[in-house]
Amino acid sequence: MRPAALAAYLRDKADAVDNEMRRLMARGDIPPRLREAMAYSLFAGGKRIRPVLLLAAMEALGAPSEPGLPAACAVEMVHTYSLIHDDLPAMDDDDWRRGRPTNHRVYGEAMAILAGDALLTEAFGILAAESAARGVPPATIVALVRELTEAAGASGMVGGQALDLEAEGKDVSVEELRAVHRRKTGALLVFCARAGGLLAGADARQLAALTRYAEHLGLAFQIQDDILDEVGDATKLGKPVGSDRRKGKATFPALLGLEASRREVTRLTEAAKAALEVPGIDGRVLAALADYLLAREA
Amino acid sequence: MRPAALAAYLRDKADAVDNEMRRLMARGDIPPRLREAMAYSLFAGGKRIRPVLLLAAMEALGAPSEPGLPAACAVEMVHTYSLIHDDLPAMDDDDWRRGRPTNHRVYGEAMAILAGDALLTEAFGILAAESAARGVPPATIVALVRELTEAAGASGMVGGQALDLEAEGKDVSVEELRAVHRRKTGALLVFCARAGGLLAGADARQLAALTRYAEHLGLAFQIQDDILDEVGDATKLGKPVGSDRRKGKATFPALLGLEASRREVTRLTEAAKAALEVPGIDGRVLAALADYLLAREA
Repeated sequence: MRPAALAAYLRDKADAVDNEMRRLMARGDIPPRLREAMAYSLFAGGKRIRPVLLLAAMEALGAPSEPGLPAACAVEMVHTYSLIHDDLPAMDDDDWRRGRPTNHRVYGEAMAILAGDALLTEAFGILAAESAARGVPPATIVALVRELTEAAGASGMVGGQALDLEAEGKDVSVEELRAVHRRKTGALLVFCARAGGLLAGADARQLAALTRYAEHLGLAFQIQDDILDEVGDATKLGKPVGSDRRKGKATFPALLGLEASRREVTRLTEAAKAALEVPGIDGRVLAALADYLLAREA
Repeated sequence: MRPAALAAYLRDKADAVDNEMRRLMARGDIPPRLREAMAYSLFAGGKRIRPVLLLAAMEALGAPSEPGLPAACAVEMVHTYSLIHDDLPAMDDDDWRRGRPTNHRVYGEAMAILAGDALLTEAFGILAAESAARGVPPATIVALVRELTEAAGASGMVGGQALDLEAEGKDVSVEELRAVHRRKTGALLVFCARAGGLLAGADARQLAALTRYAEHLGLAFQIQDDILDEVGDATKLGKPVGSDRRKGKATFPALLGLEASRREVTRLTEAAKAALEVPGIDGRVLAALADYLLAREA
């Protein structure tokens, strides 16, 4: 798939997700300022990589992606909550995100904590109720809720944050850093690929292939993030360059060097694409997505 | 039901919930300090009112309560996460809870935020996967996840926190204060009663009765909390008396006076009990629970 075709695909899917999230966020009796704080970060120009991955995984299996829209919105809401909480003064203490002041800088710490809590909570309700409304079988929904918890919870993303917290200022090996990122970034990307598979009725072999693809993709994604933090363009990134290093965080370029880190991103991207070579998976979009993430500048 | 019999009932159900929560909290590949921070607040001597209410609602309909254990654990985990986040310096800035230092005073703010996030996330996974493992039909689980989100999310508990935040230092009417507490405390209690009903196969009339019972109970519970904050025994409460007033929070005693607040608790407790008088509901335990909450000193 050519880059221009993938760009159109990404735009198309991101628009569908954004439209659905706008509809979902307009509902309910939500106090105005809380709703505003939630929307501020949810519609802050994110690339919607996770929802697109979920929908593309469904289509790679030949299924229509429309019943996956609620799950796609849910995962973007979980991702957004994690960014809001990570940016808090008590956590990473970041002032900028995607070129705008972080949530707590605009709405205050208390409201930022609540906006994150609300996005996380609403994500599960949307995954359950909206998926059901689009005809996803209840047993599949139960599996999706379980997998989202595994990916986002104490053994997954939040666990990765906790490990990251404890590692600050300590010497960390490459293997330990991989383990942190497997949880912090990888687990949610793996959820996206697997959720797409579960929604599309993947068999065990296809599900395993999607899982491996996302594991490799997730690590490549994180190393690329570290590289961009080191040598990226602050204007494109929407935040200062080198902020991880200044905080004393372990990064792949710091441990492996910049060139070896770049080679590792390329190797993992190729491994991700190779994992898709399984009967019944049309891996073209997912492979193009991996290449796109490798080449990104923000 | 006599107080001694209710006390035994409460102890029995609370033990069952605690045992199940200990089993659930021992699973998974959770970083040790995160697991410890989660357990610190989860096993901090809470009275397990919410889980007991859920299980008692099932039994009031003549159903065994055992399939409701995962939902009961989930609601206690959601309640616990909300306490951890409420106590944070950016929120209520409380140092003491149930006679012990608050979570962030022991584990630091960052870990306390993560422990809350993890408890909330795990709650949904337990509600889904563990309920399924105990034979709860997937369609019922989907309904429970939706209702837990409504109760705990942006239109429910988190929304109540946001309203409370915005009301600080402002003049608030009794009606506005009721609206805050309907979300902050009431919504989760209503979830418990309704979840018990849904799990036990309640019909629409029974579900409506349980909902009304819990609405009245929830408001009585909150007013009693405000009264205890004003005139309670700090040793029994496990926190200083008068802390809400010092923070400039609106309370029912401040708005209505102490005596009128006490009358309101009695009136609401009677209304809660009266709501249960519907065919097919044996309201004895639930009525005793309402009396118990009225008479409590902590």
